[in-house]
Amino acid sequence: MSPSPSSRGSGGRQPFELSGSESLAAVATGERTVSEIVGGLVERVRQVDGEIGAFRICDADAVLRLAKDLDDTVAGPLWGLAVGVKDVIDTADLPTGYGSPLFADHRPAEDARAVATLRRAGAIVLGKTESTEFAMYQPTRTRNPVDPARTPGGSSSGSAAAVAAGMVPVALGTQTAGSVVRPAAYCGVYGYKPAWGWSSTDGIWRLSERLDTLGMFARTVADLELLHRALVHESHGGPSRPTSQRRPTSLPRRAAVLSAGSWGDVDHDVLEALDRVAGRLEDAGWRVSELVMPHTWHRLPEHHQTVMAVEVAKNLHAVLGPRVELISDGARRIVEHGDALPAREYLGALEATEEARNHLVPLAEATDVVLAPSALGVAPLGLDATGDPVMCRAWTLLGVPAANVPFHRRGDGLPVGVQAIAPHYDDPAFLGDLSSLETALSQEESP
Amino acid sequence: MSPSPSSRGSGGRQPFELSGSESLAAVATGERTVSEIVGGLVERVRQVDGEIGAFRICDADAVLRLAKDLDDTVAGPLWGLAVGVKDVIDTADLPTGYGSPLFADHRPAEDARAVATLRRAGAIVLGKTESTEFAMYQPTRTRNPVDPARTPGGSSSGSAAAVAAGMVPVALGTQTAGSVVRPAAYCGVYGYKPAWGWSSTDGIWRLSERLDTLGMFARTVADLELLHRALVHESHGGPSRPTSQRRPTSLPRRAAVLSAGSWGDVDHDVLEALDRVAGRLEDAGWRVSELVMPHTWHRLPEHHQTVMAVEVAKNLHAVLGPRVELISDGARRIVEHGDALPAREYLGALEATEEARNHLVPLAEATDVVLAPSALGVAPLGLDATGDPVMCRAWTLLGVPAANVPFHRRGDGLPVGVQAIAPHYDDPAFLGDLSSLETALSQEESP
Repeated sequence: MSPSPSSRGSGGRQPFELSGSESLAAVATGERTVSEIVGGLVERVRQVDGEIGAFRICDADAVLRLAKDLDDTVAGPLWGLAVGVKDVIDTADLPTGYGSPLFADHRPAEDARAVATLRRAGAIVLGKTESTEFAMYQPTRTRNPVDPARTPGGSSSGSAAAVAAGMVPVALGTQTAGSVVRPAAYCGVYGYKPAWGWSSTDGIWRLSERLDTLGMFARTVADLELLHRALVHESHGGPSRPTSQRRPTSLPRRAAVLSAGSWGDVDHDVLEALDRVAGRLEDAGWRVSELVMPHTWHRLPEHHQTVMAVEVAKNLHAVLGPRVELISDGARRIVEHGDALPAREYLGALEATEEARNHLVPLAEATDVVLAPSALGVAPLGLDATGDPVMCRAWTLLGVPAANVPFHRRGDGLPVGVQAIAPHYDDPAFLGDLSSLETALSQEESP
Repeated sequence: MSPSPSSRGSGGRQPFELSGSESLAAVATGERTVSEIVGGLVERVRQVDGEIGAFRICDADAVLRLAKDLDDTVAGPLWGLAVGVKDVIDTADLPTGYGSPLFADHRPAEDARAVATLRRAGAIVLGKTESTEFAMYQPTRTRNPVDPARTPGGSSSGSAAAVAAGMVPVALGTQTAGSVVRPAAYCGVYGYKPAWGWSSTDGIWRLSERLDTLGMFARTVADLELLHRALVHESHGGPSRPTSQRRPTSLPRRAAVLSAGSWGDVDHDVLEALDRVAGRLEDAGWRVSELVMPHTWHRLPEHHQTVMAVEVAKNLHAVLGPRVELISDGARRIVEHGDALPAREYLGALEATEEARNHLVPLAEATDVVLAPSALGVAPLGLDATGDPVMCRAWTLLGVPAANVPFHRRGDGLPVGVQAIAPHYDDPAFLGDLSSLETALSQEESP
């Protein structure tokens, strides 16, 4: 059910086969109208989303009207780009339910800042994609497009599935633990979590102010760059050290492989995927080394859980008040845990994070990209859970850019994600390295 | 026992009668040698400190040797300035005990950044002044120079007393709750707590990273400005809004009086001092109004206690380990309280502080200086406690500049402090306003 992006022109291909950049080019050159592109995608949703359930809302008539309007106006750098928007991100024209029955009928007064920015640039919101309850762990009805018996992962379940199934070329998600990189890995697409603070989170459900990050799904690195350029703050407030100057592209790229076994039981499939990616990169002239985990990183997943539980509890109490009794059992357990945590543990976790951050400085000198598991294995069977975010926690806590790279598939066709992580906070430099990595992995395998 | 600063030349006056600026001028013009100035101060210490106990360490021979060396070299903008240094601030040549018997024999390897800066500028550390235990509440042996039966206040007990008794023209202190402004009020000198983050706290005992502020004592505003200029960071990391542009000095200064009764039972003496200062300012052409406390400020003293207890507990555990059992009962109660506080209360206090900060913006538009009590009353009788810092907690938590203004004395001669607070974070602008205030208060009383 996956579309195959290519660098050919759009001629002869269905809209759902086009990447975002390709569809923009087709519209800009007059080869396709916005209505043709969007009409093709709406048709794709009609055909496949009954089984997948990626969209909470996709109002075909309204979307086609928007497309028709855009046909009559040249409208900015994202003219006619169709975007899926995770349902924890406010939209003024569409209900926004934050994945919770408590907000089933909620209609925000305004677009989230990111949505308004995309719309101003000419993008069309194709619909709202399913989110787990408050972007935590209570699953959606969404199925994995690669195997409908499996979870697409969460919490950005619908966005990952929609992009994987070609219903949209790109979609917005959010990551507080592993909510972009993990579903991207399970569904076999790129999922990108930029540096913390890179873009506005105004109008996005707040779980944790120190962790929440707007992210995106796409099938090509060029599309990640497209969305990043459109949404990045002029000067963002994230942690700024180490700042990285990308090494001249004439020099060989350097990758460091971190097996991260101390964070969880990584399946053989994942280690094989890491090996294969490393091998392909070496074939393409990259320098690949092994990274021994600094001792200050070992407990980062625990520290992440501490920070997240405390902030989630505080924010859910603040927004829900007594209705906090009505959330799912799983969410309530997190709130209760967060309520009980002493301030000194919370501050201890933040200090340990700062210590861990210090190890990024020498690492950024020595390597361009860290490669690590995106998840413990392939998408788990069943829809009653969304998988374990443990392989993403540390990177979200450190606030460094991280992406799932969809390259390897297991014998049975299931995607096995490899995570690429920047040892610095410079998204444009890292996206450049991701693009080099995409090129290296797309070369023919050496004999 | 108090010296009387004046604007006359230094001729004929004893070194202990000179302000810091006067002593600098006397040395720079060759009117006095550094040895004469410092010799006079060491003699003053000999005469009066037996009763007062402001200095933990003042090694006359060593200090006179340093002075002798300085006589042979012109050495920077603070050439020959004698400074008292609170014993929670590291000095490489003198023991630093942090007010605790646990560190009675401690000798730091390096000067604190602030001490090194002063020394490079030509200042002489006359000695280490007594601090309460870890700059908290367990009193020192220091007596109030105005009335030896009373506390000088704390935690910068020795610095306040030393400046009040003319043993040094200026001294360094630190404030985490009310440890500069309160003892300055009790002893009748200027005590200045600049904006949070204005200067380095490297090498200063850490109680609370969000509250600890280097401060200073002096008998004139010019001396506060002198030390501020010498020690201020190039660009400091404190809260930066609202930034204030000082109104043209041709426009009348504006003061707003806050009685702050909701924070504690303020004595009649203090309200009288506030009235008298307000009246004198009006006589001098200031516009004086009454400030009704914004509702978000009412609980700031509680929030301060929450933040302080949590951070004190964390930091004392980190530095003392199992020796935390050996601290005073009072300090241990704070640690136990901080240990038990849930993270959500700590974060709630920080958020409430941010809300309270928002009220500074309109206030800074409408007024130049807020006037409020420095303490609940005059220095309490007895040496078994150092008085209540409640009138300083909110300002320290907000991180705004605040100063004790020593103008009013009660019928029995005891100083009654009035606190001047900046509704912004611009120390140089506020010091300018303090200087105007000093001038206004030094004018002859109108009939």
